[in-house]
Amino acid sequence: MNKEMVYLDNSAVTRLDKNVLKAMQPYFFDTYAVATSEFAYTMGIEAKEALNKARMKIAESLGAKKEELIFTSGTTESNNLALKGIMYNQKEKGHLIVSEIENFSVLNTAQRLEKEGYDVSYIGVDGEGKIKFEELKAEIREDTVLVSIQHANQEIGTVQNIKKIAKLLKDKNILFHTDATHTFRRIPIDVSEVPVDLITISAHTIHGPRGIGALFKKDSVKIQKIMNGGFQENNLRAGVENIPAAVGFAKAVELITEEENKKLKNMRDKLIERIEAEIDDVTLNGSRKDRIPQNANITFHYVEGESITLHLDMRGFAVSTGSACFSKSLEASHVILGIGGDHVRAHGSIRFTFSRYNNDQDVEKVVTAIKEVVENLREISPLGKKGSEKNEFSLQ
Amino acid sequence: MNKEMVYLDNSAVTRLDKNVLKAMQPYFFDTYAVATSEFAYTMGIEAKEALNKARMKIAESLGAKKEELIFTSGTTESNNLALKGIMYNQKEKGHLIVSEIENFSVLNTAQRLEKEGYDVSYIGVDGEGKIKFEELKAEIREDTVLVSIQHANQEIGTVQNIKKIAKLLKDKNILFHTDATHTFRRIPIDVSEVPVDLITISAHTIHGPRGIGALFKKDSVKIQKIMNGGFQENNLRAGVENIPAAVGFAKAVELITEEENKKLKNMRDKLIERIEAEIDDVTLNGSRKDRIPQNANITFHYVEGESITLHLDMRGFAVSTGSACFSKSLEASHVILGIGGDHVRAHGSIRFTFSRYNNDQDVEKVVTAIKEVVENLREISPLGKKGSEKNEFSLQ
Repeated sequence: MNKEMVYLDNSAVTRLDKNVLKAMQPYFFDTYAVATSEFAYTMGIEAKEALNKARMKIAESLGAKKEELIFTSGTTESNNLALKGIMYNQKEKGHLIVSEIENFSVLNTAQRLEKEGYDVSYIGVDGEGKIKFEELKAEIREDTVLVSIQHANQEIGTVQNIKKIAKLLKDKNILFHTDATHTFRRIPIDVSEVPVDLITISAHTIHGPRGIGALFKKDSVKIQKIMNGGFQENNLRAGVENIPAAVGFAKAVELITEEENKKLKNMRDKLIERIEAEIDDVTLNGSRKDRIPQNANITFHYVEGESITLHLDMRGFAVSTGSACFSKSLEASHVILGIGGDHVRAHGSIRFTFSRYNNDQDVEKVVTAIKEVVENLREISPLGKKGSEKNEFSLQ
Repeated sequence: MNKEMVYLDNSAVTRLDKNVLKAMQPYFFDTYAVATSEFAYTMGIEAKEALNKARMKIAESLGAKKEELIFTSGTTESNNLALKGIMYNQKEKGHLIVSEIENFSVLNTAQRLEKEGYDVSYIGVDGEGKIKFEELKAEIREDTVLVSIQHANQEIGTVQNIKKIAKLLKDKNILFHTDATHTFRRIPIDVSEVPVDLITISAHTIHGPRGIGALFKKDSVKIQKIMNGGFQENNLRAGVENIPAAVGFAKAVELITEEENKKLKNMRDKLIERIEAEIDDVTLNGSRKDRIPQNANITFHYVEGESITLHLDMRGFAVSTGSACFSKSLEASHVILGIGGDHVRAHGSIRFTFSRYNNDQDVEKVVTAIKEVVENLREISPLGKKGSEKNEFSLQ
């Protein structure tokens, strides 16, 4: 157990809110039946009503209708469903565009589609992680079916101008999917204003339960299901509905406030400000302005991210480094490489992600700790200041 | 809320055991990090250890190694992964055999594969729901890659002789998948004795959490992943691991005892015995001998299943009818039709599924209630005794 640990890495998984569990409990123990049609027993009908109520609450938070929300097992499945569901539904194998700093569940699905004979273009990003808009425009072809560009990046926190992208694509009659896992309830999207066709969201980043996410799909957009079986979710996603998780997801959506987002932003800004003022040779990765409120990502030059992570861990702080995130290897982050960083910069980058359970004291404490850690590591580091950031360096 | 209801339909979803939730709690609130490699923080390493411990406990209950267990979001995904994962991994589009009374997640995945150009054969069953072994043997071809036959049926509870099937297929070098969702921890399978290559299991039928299942895959068997993204689950299933659910799944596995299975069997036998003795014109669907301990499925002739369900519901009993289970329509059960029943028999079939939370008094009470309900319905039924079971009758 790590009760004393200051967890600053909620990029992937956040602590469950106790009120979310409380909301879920009746659906574990009382109304625990499978959702049934009106031809069955009361408990099943009540279960179905709870599911629909949860669906409506989450859909409304996107300005959508409840029929437009498909529950899935999480971000990965939603992204798989969006990309495969659209591309498989075309008569001819069409063209797909994604950015090169997408989450692996978009990137590797795109690669899978490529292997199956679909054409995929990968759009580059600038030094802040913003997609190159002119490159996107230039890549659009007659047979372009779908563009998938994340709302914000999971590592460096850069927020894309999805309004501008959506408008361009709508004009050209191309479908637009955005993975909003890391912006959902932090930076609003209203689908009645922004013409996005498909949006991936998840409960695990907002203190909701793991194992549930959703895909918003505009009702006019047709997709093919990728999970075959029963007729659940409007016949778009088979499998017994996870009603307690859906109810918990809706509760998590409700619990996020504007005040909380302001508080996160303040912690983030204070952290960046103090680190930049008090530690030499640091680089903020991502955009200073267009950035999710909960994320800071900083490269501490001449030091390896893994070493910082380990030493902060010993001091009771859980932060993560861009590399070694999804894999057991020490591969450099494709995101830091995407924004033009080299392997050294990628290996020295540390992601701090604030959550509901952090406070100003945590910022104070982590700044003190990281100053000490970086100072110590720079003294003993083989990369030292003697080395050069420009060196070709690889841990592999 | 239905606290007073006697729930006799756990075929799809069981009530969560309070001890399962207790086991999950630390992974909601204390060790809630994503599972990380050893290059990250302690909380992530501890999360990973918990995941591996859960994996080992569940694998051991099948006589398998922990590396042979892939966590999924449930039965539907496990069945999709087994069938698509094997068939997509072949160089040539091969031949698949399934039984015609499989769960929809096998049947509809098979149909999807058929649309994609794979050959699929559907094996019939006898009047008890046992697959026709000679038909299976006759359907085997040079290019047969995989056979998928459930361990037991979800509706009528018939248990297949998977040992015999597995031996046949092993001799012919054909892969064998079995959906054991409804037998797992009720009727043992030991993969060190029975040569099964892939087994689907789920937590939702054994008082574990919803949204988690697993696929056992013999380590020598190669599959292609169907959920693309990160490198989780030995690079066979992408997506942030649902650690609390995995821990809960393992706890649910542990909590099932032989005594419980005996108790279920006794309740089932008592129910069947009393209904057959005290109500005229009933047919037990499925096998009398080879039947999962928790299931009874009985057709009450001259009455519609939906009416029985509704009237039992009013008396506080949640049972289900074979039809209208997965769909909003009044389609007749493909299982009852498969065992040679007509539409009338399918519409009059009632499934009783006992769980940990039922007792002998429930059996007494439900027998009393169903006698009353069936008697009343037969008096007013348009199907009456005047009608004939053999009539072509459809509600559609």
